[in-house]
Amino acid sequence: MNPQPHPGADAGAPPSAAAPAAPAHEPAARASWAARWHGYRRAALGDDLVAALIVTILLVPQSLAYALLAGLPPVVGVMASLLPIVAYAAFGSSTTLAVGPVAVLSMMTAQAIVPAAQANGVGVHLAAMVLAVEIAGVFVLALLLRLDVFAALLSAPVLHGFVTGASLVIAIGQLPSLLGVAARGSTLTELLESLAKVPSVWPHAATAAIGLGALALLWLIRRHGLAALRALGLPARAAQLLARMAPMFVVVLSIAAVTALPQAVQGVALAGRVSLGEGLAFTPLWQAPAGLWLALAGPATLLGLVAYVESLAVAEALGARRGEKVLPRRELMGLAAANAAAGLSGAMPVTGGFARSIVNFDAGARTRVAGVWTALFLGVAILLLGDLLGALPKAVLAATIIVAVLSLVDLEPFAQAWRWSRVEFGLMVLVTALTVLAGVEAALLVGVLASMALLMQRTARPHWAEVGRLPGTEVFRNVRRFQVQTLPQVMAVRIDESLLFTNSRWLAETLESQAAARPGLRHLVLMMSGVNDIDFSGLDSLHQLDRTLGARGIRLHLSEVKGPLRDRLGASGVLSGLSGKVFATQAEAWGALGGMGGGGAASG
Amino acid sequence: MNPQPHPGADAGAPPSAAAPAAPAHEPAARASWAARWHGYRRAALGDDLVAALIVTILLVPQSLAYALLAGLPPVVGVMASLLPIVAYAAFGSSTTLAVGPVAVLSMMTAQAIVPAAQANGVGVHLAAMVLAVEIAGVFVLALLLRLDVFAALLSAPVLHGFVTGASLVIAIGQLPSLLGVAARGSTLTELLESLAKVPSVWPHAATAAIGLGALALLWLIRRHGLAALRALGLPARAAQLLARMAPMFVVVLSIAAVTALPQAVQGVALAGRVSLGEGLAFTPLWQAPAGLWLALAGPATLLGLVAYVESLAVAEALGARRGEKVLPRRELMGLAAANAAAGLSGAMPVTGGFARSIVNFDAGARTRVAGVWTALFLGVAILLLGDLLGALPKAVLAATIIVAVLSLVDLEPFAQAWRWSRVEFGLMVLVTALTVLAGVEAALLVGVLASMALLMQRTARPHWAEVGRLPGTEVFRNVRRFQVQTLPQVMAVRIDESLLFTNSRWLAETLESQAAARPGLRHLVLMMSGVNDIDFSGLDSLHQLDRTLGARGIRLHLSEVKGPLRDRLGASGVLSGLSGKVFATQAEAWGALGGMGGGGAASG
Repeated sequence: MNPQPHPGADAGAPPSAAAPAAPAHEPAARASWAARWHGYRRAALGDDLVAALIVTILLVPQSLAYALLAGLPPVVGVMASLLPIVAYAAFGSSTTLAVGPVAVLSMMTAQAIVPAAQANGVGVHLAAMVLAVEIAGVFVLALLLRLDVFAALLSAPVLHGFVTGASLVIAIGQLPSLLGVAARGSTLTELLESLAKVPSVWPHAATAAIGLGALALLWLIRRHGLAALRALGLPARAAQLLARMAPMFVVVLSIAAVTALPQAVQGVALAGRVSLGEGLAFTPLWQAPAGLWLALAGPATLLGLVAYVESLAVAEALGARRGEKVLPRRELMGLAAANAAAGLSGAMPVTGGFARSIVNFDAGARTRVAGVWTALFLGVAILLLGDLLGALPKAVLAATIIVAVLSLVDLEPFAQAWRWSRVEFGLMVLVTALTVLAGVEAALLVGVLASMALLMQRTARPHWAEVGRLPGTEVFRNVRRFQVQTLPQVMAVRIDESLLFTNSRWLAETLESQAAARPGLRHLVLMMSGVNDIDFSGLDSLHQLDRTLGARGIRLHLSEVKGPLRDRLGASGVLSGLSGKVFATQAEAWGALGGMGGGGAASG
Repeated sequence: MNPQPHPGADAGAPPSAAAPAAPAHEPAARASWAARWHGYRRAALGDDLVAALIVTILLVPQSLAYALLAGLPPVVGVMASLLPIVAYAAFGSSTTLAVGPVAVLSMMTAQAIVPAAQANGVGVHLAAMVLAVEIAGVFVLALLLRLDVFAALLSAPVLHGFVTGASLVIAIGQLPSLLGVAARGSTLTELLESLAKVPSVWPHAATAAIGLGALALLWLIRRHGLAALRALGLPARAAQLLARMAPMFVVVLSIAAVTALPQAVQGVALAGRVSLGEGLAFTPLWQAPAGLWLALAGPATLLGLVAYVESLAVAEALGARRGEKVLPRRELMGLAAANAAAGLSGAMPVTGGFARSIVNFDAGARTRVAGVWTALFLGVAILLLGDLLGALPKAVLAATIIVAVLSLVDLEPFAQAWRWSRVEFGLMVLVTALTVLAGVEAALLVGVLASMALLMQRTARPHWAEVGRLPGTEVFRNVRRFQVQTLPQVMAVRIDESLLFTNSRWLAETLESQAAARPGLRHLVLMMSGVNDIDFSGLDSLHQLDRTLGARGIRLHLSEVKGPLRDRLGASGVLSGLSGKVFATQAEAWGALGGMGGGGAASG
């Protein structure tokens, strides 16, 4: 761990205390640890401890709930909130991000591990651990191969549609637990199929009463809690924090109710005793068969992509509020460390979650060390209260999940997309619907492919313009927009885009048509001032264009090829067979092809 | 059919005879048919008939061979060379393209229909027909939805790698037939697995003698035939045509040998009697189960893509030699008609083939009607000679396939790619290897995805430049390349690329970092002169940038937004929440944000 007090405006730490490490030879470095601790204690310890305590209170029910959502024993969620936080604190860059199990990732985990574990005859817990380690591997690979650009694959319509759809399907998927019906499924389709098979579709009365009661209470607190607490005279920040900790209040209330009225709650599914000892008695990773690793490699890539994008969005949103810069590659390292720690310590995949991060932020956490305190407090809390939590009804956890995920549903992006682009709105709705009906993987795959198709269609028809010379100058402009001179035997065309496989074949065909329509033409000059790059397909199309023009007695020339590109063309010799020349400037081409240098037979 | 004598330089047709149709009311239109026929008879009939006869001679062995390659009875290849040619003549645009079964498509057909037919409990012949109709459907869909841009998906490295790999694997796959070994497989991997299971890996002596003999003969004729015929005094064109018809010579020779020496060729696999009657006794399409249609929909898309790209390349290459323009959308119509005809008449998928088209071209075919004559001649030839062809050894057909596909292997593109881009060379080699080892679908899928990944990486980091004012002008240029004035509280950045999901998040992060590094900054102006388009992700990033800058007290402005984009932004109101303004020109922004109009506190 490397506590770095944040030097922002609201930190108030004396700069000397937070000074960077002394020169890196051993004794001085060792000495600086003491100095750092001293600085940290003075600057941030108090704030961090308070924030950690508050986050811990939120984490207890959330950890249990998300483990159940992932189809795992509740204690796995607690494990996922211990070491991964510490690992992130050591490698990540955000001072407010709180990592741990989050709703969307937990649902994706369930979808990935259940079939993989069945196919390989192992438990889902081991599969979750393998998945977490593989996600860490994906992050390391992305870091080494600089694949972080692929985060862009999740375009805004795909991401909004996915988060909305996932939130809806998670909420819907919790209804059976909330009401005490035995149906299960990770998509609406699966849920309905399962519902058709259960012995009774009627809610279990006591479960439904507890579940709906908890839901109503949580909703009331979320909707009116803040105002009520303010009305009671609490200061704004305290009221906000208390309102955010509502889930714990409902948890305590329901445990009290279950303990007090054992007769009334017969048949209500309970979370069961949460024991750290049981959590630590996991099958070690090396007993996972190779088939399991293989089966989870694909899902790990997808989960890694989603985890990275979601976490980065949270870190950046909170970082901006503090004027603090998030470093994407450091985030990748932090998440890799957190997931590796999760997998090795018997936990499930984790990432930066919005709910816990915002609580951390509002509670005033100042450094990543707050996360370490959180982990400590949570461990102690589970050791002390693990037995008590056994009496917690699963329906209450279902209610906390429903309230948490429905707060992620935001229709504003849909309205904006509708106004901006009907195609992208359609994509957003499609991804939402697919997430609900066909599952996360199908939805993301279709979304990414559709985004790529839109990109291709966008870049497939680049702008080009025939150019002529502004009289008396060496400036060449679009013949349609300026009064320029042209030469009858020469057509000069400015290309405004790189020549790539998406557009070069079309461009060559278009230029050939244009050239074919001019009987007297002898030279076609491509003015390459806007061409940053040519890929092998572009090169191929240039050769093809040269051949087809050659059959008409027209020679193909280039002009104003950008420096780096000209160097590459020269060194590789790939255009040595070109029928025409490569001119440094368009004016030079004009001079050479017009007959007389610069002047010549110019027609308006 | 609509015969259109080509008005090119070598056609020599009197322009009056080839005049376009009379005004389109009925009697005149009817009268013009007679006039057209008259014109056609005078201008092109003789040439077309000769070309058709020559192509027919080539088609007989080729049709049988490619049907066997597709895992179908030989007569199906003949069926595929009858009606589809006529249908293409009615709808296509090329005057020289000859459609029919081709090598690569036939191999892909085999890979598609064998598993689909097995899974649905039907014969492969029915599956081939369904596949052809679905390919026609893919073309119609591409035509209606203007999906022809997706032909660009097959970038040059992918296409060269695929054609090379397919040619190699087809040649390798013919070796068992050539030598009389019972192994089969559509990839090298499958072939080796199959080889491990056959009772004997030793060649069948008589089969191998015939096969290797035919191979040597074909190779000799291809390599030295032209020179030998010229040495015998034949004129160049006649010698060329005779050399191209070599396969028929070898076919006749081998049939004669088999008929003369029945004892010597015992155990040699023969093609079997080719009967048009049997070809017509196919299961009608409507008996195909829905599962078969579903199973072949994916392969049909892939085959359609390959068929279109291959056919277009052939048509364009030959069209260029005649100075004749190929219309991509007309080609799509022609290929749709040809494949629909193939599916309905009990044949297999077809496309424009290089070998038959070049023979058609060299033989002097002048209009698409030559194809109709070819179909007629081929039908008659099979009716008369179908029994004789029964004595044709399959090893001879294997030899013709091997010689035909190996002529498609061209290592020059590999050398060029190596010199131009190591990454694209690597992609080309990867696709070649995957085609040979893992099959066509895996190879194309990986190739297309890798091309898209390269495209993303290329466009993910667009160029941007901070700009300042050239003193005393209203021109704004890159501060790194020009002596320009800037304002301390204003940063102006020119974006040289559309704001799309591939780049906008990175751009927003980069600009935020830049802005964060300048303490006194109050305004960031994005000069949008190079931004042609903004997608929803780009819009999202602008909002995000505005929010993060806002937290630092910096306002975000836009300037020089292009007309169509400004209109869309205005109409949709999506940027109404922007903290800053949208300035018409950068000079206006300079004036407004610099305090005094145009002048102000300018620092060099």
